[in-house]
Amino acid sequence: MRPILRPGTHVLQRGTGEVLMVAWMDDEALHRTLTTRRATYWSRSREEYWVKGESSGHAQAVHEVRLDCDGDALVVVVDQTGPACHTGTRTCFDADVLLAPADAQPSGPVR
Amino acid sequence: MRPILRPGTHVLQRGTGEVLMVAWMDDEALHRTLTTRRATYWSRSREEYWVKGESSGHAQAVHEVRLDCDGDALVVVVDQTGPACHTGTRTCFDADVLLAPADAQPSGPVR
Repeated sequence: MRPILRPGTHVLQRGTGEVLMVAWMDDEALHRTLTTRRATYWSRSREEYWVKGESSGHAQAVHEVRLDCDGDALVVVVDQTGPACHTGTRTCFDADVLLAPADAQPSGPVR
Repeated sequence: MRPILRPGTHVLQRGTGEVLMVAWMDDEALHRTLTTRRATYWSRSREEYWVKGESSGHAQAVHEVRLDCDGDALVVVVDQTGPACHTGTRTCFDADVLLAPADAQPSGPVR
């Protein structure tokens, strides 16, 4: 039983504020993240904990963790090594822009 | 039936990159948001769509919307009027810092 599985864990790059990826954390993943400062998530498909970068080398050094007012969403601020997305792009939000800025300026990182 | 309910919708302030809040969007809420540029969410408790700020006045003018590589998480970049959180604070992530920056500098907005 995993009482609180938080799908709303967004991971941001420290300094730039780029939204790198979204992942799942339950209480144990959160505990490991807080105590080791290495971002640790719950894999729904593999049903196991995984430390980001453990196999890929694209690790996340955790700088800050915040919980929202309802206690069910997290923001994790990290220093990302290499690309954050498993597709090899810098972030998981690079490819699919559904709505561009109204002033039609070139789209940069999500701020 | 709401086939894709996205719990991972994080809402960011344009320019500063502050993470303001987390909300739920299904396809219809997303459609309304994209076509009106007014942030529209699905309320699980009330089971209805709601336009942010419609009753409070704390509206969100939508600047940009991005979908992640899995198609199940969204980032919405807005211009927020007034506080974003229903508790009256600027963001929903102001109160509960689980892990502070390792260098122990004063904690500013989530970046």
